[in-house]
Amino acid sequence: MNARAHIGVTGLAVMGRNLARNFARHGYTVAVHNRTPSRTRALMEEFGHEGTFVPAETAREFVAALQCPRRLMIMVQAGAATDAVIDEFAPLLEPGDMIIDGGNAHFADTRRRETDLRERGIHFVGAGVSGGEEGALDGPSIMVGGSKESYAALGPMFETISAHVHGEACSTHIGSDGAGHFVKMVHNGIEYADMQLIAEAYDLLRQVAQYSPAEIAEIFRTWNKGRLNSYLIEITAEVLSHTDADTGRPFVDVVDAAGQKGTGRWTVQTALDLASPVTTIAQATFARAASGQSTLRTAYRPLPGGMHIPKSRSEAERFTSQVEQALYASKVIAYDQGFTMIQDAALAYGWDIDFGAVAGIWRGGCIIRAAFLDRIRTAHEAAPDLVSLLAEPSFAEEIAAAQVPWREVVATAARRGVPAPAFAAALSYYDTLRADRLPAALLQGQRDYFGAHTYRRIDRQGVFHTHWGHPDRPETDV
Amino acid sequence: MNARAHIGVTGLAVMGRNLARNFARHGYTVAVHNRTPSRTRALMEEFGHEGTFVPAETAREFVAALQCPRRLMIMVQAGAATDAVIDEFAPLLEPGDMIIDGGNAHFADTRRRETDLRERGIHFVGAGVSGGEEGALDGPSIMVGGSKESYAALGPMFETISAHVHGEACSTHIGSDGAGHFVKMVHNGIEYADMQLIAEAYDLLRQVAQYSPAEIAEIFRTWNKGRLNSYLIEITAEVLSHTDADTGRPFVDVVDAAGQKGTGRWTVQTALDLASPVTTIAQATFARAASGQSTLRTAYRPLPGGMHIPKSRSEAERFTSQVEQALYASKVIAYDQGFTMIQDAALAYGWDIDFGAVAGIWRGGCIIRAAFLDRIRTAHEAAPDLVSLLAEPSFAEEIAAAQVPWREVVATAARRGVPAPAFAAALSYYDTLRADRLPAALLQGQRDYFGAHTYRRIDRQGVFHTHWGHPDRPETDV
Repeated sequence: MNARAHIGVTGLAVMGRNLARNFARHGYTVAVHNRTPSRTRALMEEFGHEGTFVPAETAREFVAALQCPRRLMIMVQAGAATDAVIDEFAPLLEPGDMIIDGGNAHFADTRRRETDLRERGIHFVGAGVSGGEEGALDGPSIMVGGSKESYAALGPMFETISAHVHGEACSTHIGSDGAGHFVKMVHNGIEYADMQLIAEAYDLLRQVAQYSPAEIAEIFRTWNKGRLNSYLIEITAEVLSHTDADTGRPFVDVVDAAGQKGTGRWTVQTALDLASPVTTIAQATFARAASGQSTLRTAYRPLPGGMHIPKSRSEAERFTSQVEQALYASKVIAYDQGFTMIQDAALAYGWDIDFGAVAGIWRGGCIIRAAFLDRIRTAHEAAPDLVSLLAEPSFAEEIAAAQVPWREVVATAARRGVPAPAFAAALSYYDTLRADRLPAALLQGQRDYFGAHTYRRIDRQGVFHTHWGHPDRPETDV
Repeated sequence: MNARAHIGVTGLAVMGRNLARNFARHGYTVAVHNRTPSRTRALMEEFGHEGTFVPAETAREFVAALQCPRRLMIMVQAGAATDAVIDEFAPLLEPGDMIIDGGNAHFADTRRRETDLRERGIHFVGAGVSGGEEGALDGPSIMVGGSKESYAALGPMFETISAHVHGEACSTHIGSDGAGHFVKMVHNGIEYADMQLIAEAYDLLRQVAQYSPAEIAEIFRTWNKGRLNSYLIEITAEVLSHTDADTGRPFVDVVDAAGQKGTGRWTVQTALDLASPVTTIAQATFARAASGQSTLRTAYRPLPGGMHIPKSRSEAERFTSQVEQALYASKVIAYDQGFTMIQDAALAYGWDIDFGAVAGIWRGGCIIRAAFLDRIRTAHEAAPDLVSLLAEPSFAEEIAAAQVPWREVVATAARRGVPAPAFAAALSYYDTLRADRLPAALLQGQRDYFGAHTYRRIDRQGVFHTHWGHPDRPETDV
C-alpha cells in the first residue's frame, strides 16, 4: 500500500473532493487527506467505488502514500490556511517534490511561497482551476504556474483531467512562479466584465426596446447561435426564462443586489499597480458594489432620469441588432484589456507567456468559455507579437463595422437614463487609444503648473518645466 | 538655547523647508534638522532671517531643542524612510511627546505606526498637507489624524500656518489614527477626477465645437466667474492660453502623456476594498495610464472613429453651455463619490468625521479649492447625517436642471468619437443609483446558476438558491 499514489489531495471540501474524484475516475491512484478525518471517511464511503483512493488520517501517512517525486495538491482556503498547510507538509517532503496550490491564491502570495520553497528544493506550483465545482469534477480549465520541470511531471495528469475542446486539453504551463494564479485572476476579471456587459444589454433591451424577460431570453438564444456563442450567453437565456414559483413573476424581478468574492477587485487593484487600463473590468466591479449601496440608492432614487419613448416593433428590432453589435464590440475590448494586462505583467514579472495557449485553454471548462476564444487563439498563433486583438485584421474589421451602432447604443443609454457603465467604458477606451492627441496633455500642463511635476514633449527628448507666471523665463530642460 | 523650540522639522527638502519657514514666519521657534547637515545650513543661510530657527546637526541636539511635550514633524519620503526616521527618534522621546508625519503616507501605514507608538506613550499624528510647495510656505490645507489630545496641542499651530478662507483656518482634526492621511488620499483622488473632467470638457470644446485653445481659455475664464469657480479652472485657462516659445504652437499641442505619483491609484485600490464605487476617480486614474500606453495606441490608431461635422457659431455656443452643465454635474458626482468613500471608511475604521469641516478646510490651500465647497459645507452643517450631496435640495435641483444637457454631451461624445470616460462614468453612476431595479439581479442569477453563489430576494429575508436544471426541485432557503 505504501508510496503508490500518483497524486495526493489534502483539503476535501467540495473543490478538493471533486478534483480527487476526477483524478481517480481517470485511473490515477489518489491519496486523500483532510484535517478532520471524517471528511476523508465520507469521501471513501460515498465515492470510494469511483476509483483507487488511498485514505490517510495523518500528514505522515499521507506523504508516505505518495510516489516520488511526490505530487501533493492542497485545496484549502487562500491566505493563512494555505500557509499553515504548507508549513505542516514542507518538512516532510524531499527535494524534487511538488506542492500544488489549486486554490484561489493571490498571485503575489504564490510568488512569495514559490521563492521560499525553491530555496528548500521543493517545487511550488500555483495552479488556477476554473469551472467551479462542476468543472473540478468533469473537466476544469487549469492555468499552471511554477517551474517548467514541475509541469513536465504534472502536465500530463492535468491535461488528462481538464476539459477538452476538439480533442485539445484545457491545461497549459502559463509561466514561472505566480503566472498561473495571475492569469486565473485576470480570467475572473474578464468574467466580471462579460457578465456586466450582458446585464447592461438585457437592461437596454428591457427598458428601451421594452421586451419582457422571456422575449429577451429568446434574443439571447438567437445570439448564442452567432459570434456571441458562449456559456454565459447560454445561461443568461436560462436565467431570464425562469419564473419565480412563489410570485409567478420573472425570476430577475425578485432577486436583489449582486455579490462578489474578490477576484474582480484583485484584478483592478493589480491593474492599477501595472498601469494597465482595464476600465470595463473596473466598471463591472464597481457596478456590483453600487448595487449593494442601498442607503445611497434611496437618496438618489427621487432624481429625474432620461425620457422613455415607446418603440415600434421595427424600431425595437433595429435596436436589438445594435445592442448585439455593441455587446460584441465591448466584449472584444474587455478581452483585449485583459490580454494587455497579462502582457504588462509578463513584462513586469519576467514571464514568457504564450497568449495563444491562454486563449486556447479558456475555450473549455471555465466560465468565460466562448466560441470567439478560438479566433483569439488563432490570432495570437498567427502573430505571436500581437499587441492587441484590434491589430488583427478580422477583429479590426468587425469592430469597424460595429462602431456606429455601438456609438448609437451608448448614446441612447445616456439619453434614456439607462445605466451602461461598462458599454460606455469600453467605447471610451476605444476612442482614447485611437486618438491622435489626448487631453492628458492639458492635465500634465496643470500638474506642471501647480506642482512643478514637469512634462515630456512630443517633438524632442527630455523632461521639461515651464516657469508659469514668469513669461520672461524660458522653459527649463530638467 | 535649550528646549525652546515650539516645533521641530526633520527632513528639509522643499516641503519640509517651506513648512519650517511658514512656522517661523508666524513667530514660532522652529528646530530644523536634516540627515545631511548641509541642507540645514543652506536653510539657515538663505532663510535664517525670516524667523527664529534652531539648527541641529544631530538627532539628540534636535530633540533637546524642543519644548515639552515635544512636537517633532517628519517630512521625509513615505515608506521605509519614514519608518527609519521614526525608529531613530522614538527612543529619544518621552511619553506625551508627538511625532507628526506630514508626508504622503498611506493611511494603513499611519494606522500601524500610530498603534505601535501609542503602546510607547507617544502620539503619532498623520497629517495630510495639501497645496504643494507653495501651499506649504504660504498656507496649506491640513488634514490631521491622531488623538484628540494631540490635536489640542498641535491644532492652534496648524490653524495659524494653514490657509484661511473668510478668516477660517483650513486645518482640522479629521479623526483618530489614519483618518487625516485617508482624507488627504481621497482629496487627491477627487483632484484626479476634477482634472480629468476638465480635460474632457476641453477636448469636447476643441473637437466638437472646434474652438482653438486660446478660445477655450476664454471660455474657462468665463466659467470661473460662475459656479465652477475654482483654482483648477483658473489654471486651466492659464495653461490653455500659453504658447510654446519654441514652436509657436499652443502649449497643449506639444506636451506628451500624463504622469501620476500614486495617490489616485491608492484611492481606487482602497475604494475597491471598501466597496465604494468611485467610478469617476477610477476612470481618471486609468485615463492617465492609457495616455502612456504608446504601443497600444499605435495599434489602435488606424481604427475608425465617429463623424466630425462642423458646427455653426450658434451651435458651438449652445454646445459650450451644455458642456458647462455636464462638467458641473459630473464634478458634483465626483465629489459625492469621494464623500461616500470617506463615509464608508468612517464606518469601517470607527472614525467620527465632521464632513462639513472636511469641505470647509478644502476651500483654501489645496489644489481642489473651489467656491462650491462652501455650499457642500453648508449642506453638511444643515444635515449632519446627509447621505449624499444629491439629497440636499439645492444640489438636487441643479443636477435635475443639468441632466438633459449632461446626457446630450455624453451622447455627443459617444457619437463623435471623443473619449469622455469620466463624464460617462459620472452619468452612469447617477443613473445606476437612481434606478429602481438594476440588472445586477440578472448577474446574481448567473452567479447562482454557475457557482451556487445564492441570492437575496427583494420580497423576504433569507439567502436562497435555485436548483437550475431541476425545475421540479423548489428554491432552497440556505
